[in-house]
Amino acid sequence: MAASTPMTLPVLGPEEIEAAARPAVVFDAVRAALVAHAEGRTTVPPPTHLNFPHADGDCHVKTGWIDGADDFTVKIASGFYRNPERGEPVNHGLVCVVSAHTGRVRAVLDDGGRLTAWRTAAAGALAGHTLARPGARSVGVFGTGEQARLQVRWLAMLRPVGPVLVHGRAEGRAAALCGRLAAHGLDARPAAAAEAAGADIVITATPAGAPVLEAGAVRPGAHVTAVGADMPHKNELPAALFARARVIATDDREQCLHHGDFGHAVRAGAVPGDADVPLGALLATPPERPDDAVTIADLTGVGALDAALASAVVREILG
Amino acid sequence: MAASTPMTLPVLGPEEIEAAARPAVVFDAVRAALVAHAEGRTTVPPPTHLNFPHADGDCHVKTGWIDGADDFTVKIASGFYRNPERGEPVNHGLVCVVSAHTGRVRAVLDDGGRLTAWRTAAAGALAGHTLARPGARSVGVFGTGEQARLQVRWLAMLRPVGPVLVHGRAEGRAAALCGRLAAHGLDARPAAAAEAAGADIVITATPAGAPVLEAGAVRPGAHVTAVGADMPHKNELPAALFARARVIATDDREQCLHHGDFGHAVRAGAVPGDADVPLGALLATPPERPDDAVTIADLTGVGALDAALASAVVREILG
Repeated sequence: MAASTPMTLPVLGPEEIEAAARPAVVFDAVRAALVAHAEGRTTVPPPTHLNFPHADGDCHVKTGWIDGADDFTVKIASGFYRNPERGEPVNHGLVCVVSAHTGRVRAVLDDGGRLTAWRTAAAGALAGHTLARPGARSVGVFGTGEQARLQVRWLAMLRPVGPVLVHGRAEGRAAALCGRLAAHGLDARPAAAAEAAGADIVITATPAGAPVLEAGAVRPGAHVTAVGADMPHKNELPAALFARARVIATDDREQCLHHGDFGHAVRAGAVPGDADVPLGALLATPPERPDDAVTIADLTGVGALDAALASAVVREILG
Repeated sequence: MAASTPMTLPVLGPEEIEAAARPAVVFDAVRAALVAHAEGRTTVPPPTHLNFPHADGDCHVKTGWIDGADDFTVKIASGFYRNPERGEPVNHGLVCVVSAHTGRVRAVLDDGGRLTAWRTAAAGALAGHTLARPGARSVGVFGTGEQARLQVRWLAMLRPVGPVLVHGRAEGRAAALCGRLAAHGLDARPAAAAEAAGADIVITATPAGAPVLEAGAVRPGAHVTAVGADMPHKNELPAALFARARVIATDDREQCLHHGDFGHAVRAGAVPGDADVPLGALLATPPERPDDAVTIADLTGVGALDAALASAVVREILG
């Protein structure tokens, strides 16, 4: 190896990445990756987790490959929850895009977590748009963070949306999110939990460790997407809601059993461990959906989506 | 996360890294990491492996942290064995050094696999120097690649070495390695397997899938270091040699059981699965060693060494 002079390693920054990752690029990559994953055409080893309790931090390393694709990816994503005390963002990380033909690192994407945020938003929007009734318009949102905002914004790219009912534990943060959504032209206002849970489409994007809504508050005909859970102790949806669901979509059964809301419902005995359908299969062939059925999408984030999106962005920028 | 403007991500290239990674820096980092690992003061999740059979390639992702250290590392190391057909080196990769206080990626080390090669060489040299008899001089080397050369070169930094007896399957490659060792001032010549196996210090650095030497050819009083095995199907040392050994040092018991020569010997029934001692414990307190004892070091490469070395190099360069 010492004999070779490596070419300079390209590092792509946030601005380049933002310009390249147009919504159509993101939706296409995420949809294709979900379908490939549902069809077993992906390689996604279990993620590596490191914990840094002294700094209230953790780091996940996710690898993924769409089988046969030109590139695979290695993503480093950290969350250090005391960073704001020193004026630093909570999340850091990068994505390495590696050639599946030579093993050479084609590029490092210094994206500040944006690609993960967008692929999560796009997956949630695709799930909501595919599973919700055609006429579903009102959206209830639990959570007031960046991902809550993106979930609504990206769904609104696929179908008309409104009103948006935002429920947050802190009133001020819910109002702030409504202000940002209004700036996107959306009709949004803070709401009580029961009101948000009664919307046509319900989205949970919180770090909650216990259900954020009552199963009985969700109306017949509603669709519910949960994106917050990324560790076994996190939980947004009550088990009883799964028992009512006509369709339970998961982005990855094993992951959702391990650290998604689906796993909580299975362990509670509400549904069997094979009650779910891969989201990608539903994107390829939308399910029959009676108007009064409840549908759920439980999304935990799959490395194959990182791979597809990062690879698409590198293709846009480097050709 | 979108609110922050990340600082530019530093990428350190091979020349900077070579200048910073002086042997004293590498030996200090590797020794400290081996001792910490032996004392249970490291966090080393299982590596992730990806296979790309269509291109005869694989990729390992290793994470590691010396508990309490300022940084942890994520290393990507690929081997694509048809690359030489297109004029590319077999190995590619990089090391990301991440703050254990904030999760921010401090630097990307575009080292072309050098750091892994050096930490492997330093660990082998420390093992050989600590376990071999004080008067041991002759070195038998199995393998003719870059790592075979480095093992001898780094051992020679710690003690007088010679003659060096190089055994390779291809005569020409053994002669070429002898030429390179001679350029370092070493007395080296090609040798038959039995002659190389009869040296005071024996080093195996091959991708062999079956033992490269006969147990009976190893003399009483010899020390043997094996560094080649990194997958369960690889095997350099015969089980019978382990049965003769007074000391069996491993860099990591679980890894060596899983994909080291020690694991082959245990599965063959030659020694129990707890017959080994952590190399780091022997570095801290060298063992008693009768002059006629055989000693073995089985090294599979531990992520904690990557972490310690990459962190030390970044400290040298960025402060």
